Amino acid sequence: MKARIVTLPGDGVGPEVLDAAVAVLQAVAERSGHTFEFESHLIGGCAIDATGEPLPAATLEACKKADAVFLGAVGGPKWSDPQAKVRPEQGLLAIRAALGVYANLRPLQVHPSLASLSPLKNEKLKNVDVLFVRELTGGAYFGAKTRTTDTATDECKYTVAEVERVTRRAFELARERRQHVTSVDKANVLETSRLWRSTVTRVAAEYPDVKLEHQLVDSMAMLLLTQPSRYDVVVTENLFGDILTDEAAALAGSLGLLPSASLGEGKVGLYEPIHGSAPDIAGQGVANPLGAIMSAALLLRHSLDLDVEATTIEAAVSHVLTNGPHTRDIGGKAGTAEVRDAVIAALDDVA
Amino acid sequence: MKARIVTLPGDGVGPEVLDAAVAVLQAVAERSGHTFEFESHLIGGCAIDATGEPLPAATLEACKKADAVFLGAVGGPKWSDPQAKVRPEQGLLAIRAALGVYANLRPLQVHPSLASLSPLKNEKLKNVDVLFVRELTGGAYFGAKTRTTDTATDECKYTVAEVERVTRRAFELARERRQHVTSVDKANVLETSRLWRSTVTRVAAEYPDVKLEHQLVDSMAMLLLTQPSRYDVVVTENLFGDILTDEAAALAGSLGLLPSASLGEGKVGLYEPIHGSAPDIAGQGVANPLGAIMSAALLLRHSLDLDVEATTIEAAVSHVLTNGPHTRDIGGKAGTAEVRDAVIAALDDVA
Ligand SMILES: CC(C)[C@H](C(=O)O)[C@@H](O)C(=O)O
Ligand SMILES: CC(C)[C@H](C(=O)O)[C@@H](O)C(=O)O
Repeated sequence: MKARIVTLPGDGVGPEVLDAAVAVLQAVAERSGHTFEFESHLIGGCAIDATGEPLPAATLEACKKADAVFLGAVGGPKWSDPQAKVRPEQGLLAIRAALGVYANLRPLQVHPSLASLSPLKNEKLKNVDVLFVRELTGGAYFGAKTRTTDTATDECKYTVAEVERVTRRAFELARERRQHVTSVDKANVLETSRLWRSTVTRVAAEYPDVKLEHQLVDSMAMLLLTQPSRYDVVVTENLFGDILTDEAAALAGSLGLLPSASLGEGKVGLYEPIHGSAPDIAGQGVANPLGAIMSAALLLRHSLDLDVEATTIEAAVSHVLTNGPHTRDIGGKAGTAEVRDAVIAALDDVA
Repeated sequence: MKARIVTLPGDGVGPEVLDAAVAVLQAVAERSGHTFEFESHLIGGCAIDATGEPLPAATLEACKKADAVFLGAVGGPKWSDPQAKVRPEQGLLAIRAALGVYANLRPLQVHPSLASLSPLKNEKLKNVDVLFVRELTGGAYFGAKTRTTDTATDECKYTVAEVERVTRRAFELARERRQHVTSVDKANVLETSRLWRSTVTRVAAEYPDVKLEHQLVDSMAMLLLTQPSRYDVVVTENLFGDILTDEAAALAGSLGLLPSASLGEGKVGLYEPIHGSAPDIAGQGVANPLGAIMSAALLLRHSLDLDVEATTIEAAVSHVLTNGPHTRDIGGKAGTAEVRDAVIAALDDVA
């Protein structure tokens, strides 16, 4: 097959990890006879520097025509003045909204060879396999904002239709997994959470084969630590998902390992490692590329329907996690390029 | 001294743990020659059942005249229909607002004898000593809400004055501790967080002896697990505080141990264990009373200026944690009454 992938390297370590992941995708293409065309565009801080805007029109246009969009990371101290009118993160939020990718999938598994890096005790990590489905284009992220000298407001808003579509996605995914959905809200306080809960409960009736459980966000923040292996698919609104997935990421031993896929109704998905731009290590060639490489696997699976190739990448990453080399964040000494090459070499071993 | 304490037992295990804590306060009063008068009032689900309202006028009036208010817990399945017009939690939010207790202090320490119960590895738990200062009377909890068939909204609102006063409280507390404040927000997305961050930064200049650090809420959810001993005082807005303090509570091995104090400008504080009404074990006499008893210690310290007596209770609790008896949630077999009696007996040993 032939596919057009737009890359948005962004800021900090974004370009480094994306380069490595693109090399892996190219290696997969060679081995499988597919043709992936890559086109790179600006987003975030570097886009502000070059054009004054965090999401230039040319970037948006290219993304809309692509089969998939592959993003590194945005932001950094250079652009983080809280009073600034234009911020790198606006580019990320704008591309999510423009592509309509309302369901952000963040899978969490803990690789056995990294259990020693996790802050959690080993026995807690056994059988942890959670798929977070975070609503990505609604909530306080996109609500009306006001600011005066004395006051600021953020509005969190959800419509029934927004909750329905992300809930359906969560239940569809649960069907292919362990048939269990945990919906997280704060229905004892928030009106949007009460709408969320009643909508999820109603949609769940369409999936009698899947068990539904509700948790309050504060309890869930605790349960993720005390009973992490209990959860299968966890669906929640945008801001709660942001917080809970970073908390859960700590369990894996490093944020550098974890991928994400953001999906809408069409095939154009947005793929990004969940780590940020890590300005402290940018430009040194030491960033962990595995989160980006795992995101490349999700890209193949969800946007290009190349499930076998996706699984091959995941197996190669697992092989490298078991045997090394490892970057510094997971206790090794290797650089980004060395890990990239090891994953590419492992593609043949695991195929 | 003579003090008037209003007790609000509430629902579920609330009455059981509050009874135990009141017995400890009475034992302290006898030993120290103070007189504490207790007056019990309705709040939450039991108040709805008796009066139709979660915070009856008689309760509010009594609280306003008291020297301190001591609350058990509110809520339970009986009153948790998300469509209900009147909910137990409204009573809790209304009393917090009416008393103006804008600063919710939630100390977290991990008792060495309970480290085995924590999901975190032992080495992570060393020297964990965090004081959360959660803003308690603003944010999405108290903002305007709307609901139609199709849509719901919650407004999060903060004024500069609201942020200033809780920030000052946090810095004052940090001065008495390790001179370090971490302010948590989501300034890369929320307008209220940008107001929060710039206000905290400005107030911090009044405290040159205290170090200020900002963290995004998603990063903080991770850092609490990976570097918990790094934090001293953590100040944040209402909803982030709700989530982060429950996450942090998991580190202690049981929610049943942790106290809270909610303070405003006057001396009338509101004290409550951070655990909920635990309907699954209510009425069985097995609830852990230590969170309530530790809250009683905070009551003595912050509302009655009885620091020596507060420290005596804390030492007695520590003695019981080391030597037992322990309730089921922390791996023992004792009931609420047995633990209460052990704390009272320990008052003499540690004094
Ligand atoms: C960079 C930031 C705006 C973003 C978010 O909050 O969504 C990030 O934390 C994430 O989780 O992708
Ligand atoms: C019961 C609920 C309304 C309350 C809150 O969210 O504040 C509780 O979770 C707490 O933390 O005291």
